[in-house]
Amino acid sequence: MYRSHTCGELRMEHCGTQVTLSGWVQIVRNLGGMTFIDLRDRYGITQLAFNMESKPELCEMARKCGREFVIQATGAVRERSSKNPNRPTGDVEIEVEELNVLNQSAVPPFTIEDESDGGDELRMRYRYLDIRRNPVRQKIEFRHRLALEVRNFLSGLHFLEIETPYLIKSTPEGARDFIVPSRMNPGQFYALPQSPQTFKQILMVAGMDKYFQIVRCFRDEDLRADRQPEFTQIDCEMAFVDQDDVLETFEQLARHLFKTLLGHELGTFPRMKYEEAMDRYGSDKPDLRFGFDLRDLSAMKGAGFSLIDDSPCVKGILVDDPGQFFTNKELGLLTDWVRRPQIGASGLIYLRFSNDGIKATVGKYYTAEQLEAIGKALGAKAGDVLFVLAGERHQVLRQLGELRLELARRLNRITPGVFTPLWIVDFPLLEWDEEENRFFAMHHPFTSPLPGEAEKIYSSDRAVLASIHAAAYDMVINGVEIGGGSIRIHDRTLQSRNFEILGFEKDEAERQFGFLLGAFEYGAPPHGGIAFGLDRLCSVMGGQTSIRDYIPFPKNNMGRDVMIDAPAAIDPRQLGELHLRIDPKN
Amino acid sequence: MYRSHTCGELRMEHCGTQVTLSGWVQIVRNLGGMTFIDLRDRYGITQLAFNMESKPELCEMARKCGREFVIQATGAVRERSSKNPNRPTGDVEIEVEELNVLNQSAVPPFTIEDESDGGDELRMRYRYLDIRRNPVRQKIEFRHRLALEVRNFLSGLHFLEIETPYLIKSTPEGARDFIVPSRMNPGQFYALPQSPQTFKQILMVAGMDKYFQIVRCFRDEDLRADRQPEFTQIDCEMAFVDQDDVLETFEQLARHLFKTLLGHELGTFPRMKYEEAMDRYGSDKPDLRFGFDLRDLSAMKGAGFSLIDDSPCVKGILVDDPGQFFTNKELGLLTDWVRRPQIGASGLIYLRFSNDGIKATVGKYYTAEQLEAIGKALGAKAGDVLFVLAGERHQVLRQLGELRLELARRLNRITPGVFTPLWIVDFPLLEWDEEENRFFAMHHPFTSPLPGEAEKIYSSDRAVLASIHAAAYDMVINGVEIGGGSIRIHDRTLQSRNFEILGFEKDEAERQFGFLLGAFEYGAPPHGGIAFGLDRLCSVMGGQTSIRDYIPFPKNNMGRDVMIDAPAAIDPRQLGELHLRIDPKN
Repeated sequence: MYRSHTCGELRMEHCGTQVTLSGWVQIVRNLGGMTFIDLRDRYGITQLAFNMESKPELCEMARKCGREFVIQATGAVRERSSKNPNRPTGDVEIEVEELNVLNQSAVPPFTIEDESDGGDELRMRYRYLDIRRNPVRQKIEFRHRLALEVRNFLSGLHFLEIETPYLIKSTPEGARDFIVPSRMNPGQFYALPQSPQTFKQILMVAGMDKYFQIVRCFRDEDLRADRQPEFTQIDCEMAFVDQDDVLETFEQLARHLFKTLLGHELGTFPRMKYEEAMDRYGSDKPDLRFGFDLRDLSAMKGAGFSLIDDSPCVKGILVDDPGQFFTNKELGLLTDWVRRPQIGASGLIYLRFSNDGIKATVGKYYTAEQLEAIGKALGAKAGDVLFVLAGERHQVLRQLGELRLELARRLNRITPGVFTPLWIVDFPLLEWDEEENRFFAMHHPFTSPLPGEAEKIYSSDRAVLASIHAAAYDMVINGVEIGGGSIRIHDRTLQSRNFEILGFEKDEAERQFGFLLGAFEYGAPPHGGIAFGLDRLCSVMGGQTSIRDYIPFPKNNMGRDVMIDAPAAIDPRQLGELHLRIDPKN
Repeated sequence: MYRSHTCGELRMEHCGTQVTLSGWVQIVRNLGGMTFIDLRDRYGITQLAFNMESKPELCEMARKCGREFVIQATGAVRERSSKNPNRPTGDVEIEVEELNVLNQSAVPPFTIEDESDGGDELRMRYRYLDIRRNPVRQKIEFRHRLALEVRNFLSGLHFLEIETPYLIKSTPEGARDFIVPSRMNPGQFYALPQSPQTFKQILMVAGMDKYFQIVRCFRDEDLRADRQPEFTQIDCEMAFVDQDDVLETFEQLARHLFKTLLGHELGTFPRMKYEEAMDRYGSDKPDLRFGFDLRDLSAMKGAGFSLIDDSPCVKGILVDDPGQFFTNKELGLLTDWVRRPQIGASGLIYLRFSNDGIKATVGKYYTAEQLEAIGKALGAKAGDVLFVLAGERHQVLRQLGELRLELARRLNRITPGVFTPLWIVDFPLLEWDEEENRFFAMHHPFTSPLPGEAEKIYSSDRAVLASIHAAAYDMVINGVEIGGGSIRIHDRTLQSRNFEILGFEKDEAERQFGFLLGAFEYGAPPHGGIAFGLDRLCSVMGGQTSIRDYIPFPKNNMGRDVMIDAPAAIDPRQLGELHLRIDPKN
């Protein structure tokens, strides 16, 4: 037996008990007559006490223990003379009678503390040491609890977790598929799934009715800062449901998770149409933790300022600034910020309201009365600043959407521990692509139009088609898209027409989705679903901006696992067996 | 709203309630004045009644519904005039007032019944129809419940489910690895894990203490009948444990699963040494549901029968045969059976005991008295048959092990619903390979010797090394290896010596296990674990011999998914992007 208790377990009531603990040496403190070791495991830290006078050999042995040595100590629990109120075990210590070094440790390359001195690269290379740190360990524990809650909650609603295959088929458009050569079938390849989408729809045809799966998904794409080539989804699908059924079920799930894991009541989720979200927040995943709504400023037109007069869209954000954060210098920095290529505005117009009147970058085009009228219409008061962008509607919305978030960050208007969930609904079904001169599915080609709008799909008028709304929805919390899904088409005529609009040739559709279309011939029920990003859900619930530490073994933004050094070259014989050759010219 | 109730829910107390059901048409029965539809969903079957007199149009519509049409029916629940006691909903029916065909269905290629007329290939191609059948659906539901029970039970013991990566690194010896080319790192490859072995050991070094994961594993090998290229393991690891701790923990898990899911008390698992299992049952996964122990027959030596006299090993199985199953014809068939190349015996010696004396194939070498003495020593009685094989020990054990199972099958001695679990312990650490003239690890190179035998590993005597026992163990139920694992080496000197014995060069060990050996430098705790085959556990608990139907979407023995037709050729452009070329010459 290596231990009778964990290092997080002992309290005053254990005093006098003989115990054995095992764990890692956090620190050795040598105070001359006494030596103390803080012994750490996953559950906490307990102090071991060694007396130089009564047990000199043991005490010498303790002094030789380095950081992260693995040791086992036996002795009686006793009350500490100087207690540590910051530690649950801080009232007691072990008077060690037997010490056993189970393993030594080299000096770790960074400190195993809440605030480590290790940089990101180093922490990832020695992830096994990084995970010993509380903040990382706690995130991995949180992820475990979250996944278990999801499973129990959905199972309670009669959902079945059903495993779908990881070795599937690549589709011609699957440019982001990871492929896997088959040794038994030379020249043929599996693909790793980007999501179990078709399989979950197959399961609905199979009558499984309520499916979920916490499942790994794979995407071989250039990685943005917070993307991983493999990531985990909570993937769900239901049959015999309409949009309301799905939203209600998964709103319940989210409420349950926040309540159980954070003790937080989310309340009822507002539902906002895509159009309104774009118009008011310049984003289809608005962060509602603060105001700063986008305001219509068409009234500014007609004053002879061509930048504004000639723009189809003039909108702005009115910001209260009681602390006078926006000095001229700050306004200059913000102007630089909107000019960055990622934002792409040509400049930033602002009006500052004060008791002494209105100072505006565009003062020469407007009279004081005109500016006052603008302020009055918006309800501006002294101290407020109005930021204005003008241009093509789509661009202005996107730019103001970004500016809105940046203003909240700069003005520090995001309160920790606040959660603002909502559903975004009524997405457009189709998106026109000017370059390719054709429609794309905004969600995916199996997404159903809203009931009542299905007939429009048979129109040949581009404007009518562009006006169709999809039965698609996103769950957004704190400006992060936590999950998204749709009701699927189960009517064959409608599906064929949708493929036609999306420019699929008949055999192309057959090649890409053949087995699913085949399944749809045999009694497909109405169905719909949703998928949540588990990594992202964890990070939003934890109030973190990065998903990285919720993933036990993440890859870097080159898709590399720096701990195991993968990907790597392989033995040419292995390639040979697969009938493959590396062709650097290509 | 598509339904107010499921098709398995309505009872007498619902009579008079207005309900809406949705589901699939199991059968339409047209009785002239009345038409009945059996409406099926995942939860059961409910009868829909249509009256030709009162609702002729509805009735006509019902008659046009084909098998597997998806329909929605609304009406009042009423008591049936002729009840069906075999169905939980058999007391009631719906008097349909509104019928809605949600989707049509082509005629399914096989019947959706418990006993289908579809062959294996057809059922796999139309797996979505196959899953609608009760026996398949129930197996998938069972798998769901089992996985959930495992998760809740282990979580209750403070195990954490931690996800390990699927895109890892291929090892030089990883001939069975599936490899995955990386687009972002041309010429480099990930590998899919055959198991998360190294990652779970890394997690122990990381202090995670009690880890589990229900995880997909991948192996690109020629498939035997009941192997899959991807399969699911319940993978577990614990730190600060010895062998007893692991066995007790997972015996508890198995008992819990059998109790909860089958209402079956497994009791305490006997522990049997590998040596005894081989000696008594000719197998390291003995089926204890029946007797037929292997008996020593060295006493038969010395009678001048060279086949026996010259064999290092003479053993047999004594079978009671009160029904006189073993006629001369049956004995002939059994002799053919042991001569098959898979078994490889040259022939089968048998002695039949009766009140009229002993009939033996080797009668001419033995006197009646000698034969009687043999029978007496074994406790043979009239009606018994003794089967004897002689030869090299290893072969005789294996052949008799197979014969033992075959005898139980032929004599029908396997009672359904009986479960005989046991632990096999004290496996040899090393296996000598005559051809390669070197030792191999019987389990894997990180497996620890039994405490007390570790010193032997420093011997240079081959016989001493071969006699070392490993702290390795298998859980066996009904002759099936459900799980296996070991205590790992955490001492660096011991590990180096083990690598040396296994013939690893220093840099070879470094290349293969570098990151794990690196981790072991930083305070590796004593640890050990076990992994269970989820598919196999399900099938043993379900009393099935095949794992196939517990896998929602299995592959055939060529590794093909015949439903989606994978693996398949891919677009040459896709290969080009990966800098790969197919090289058929190779």
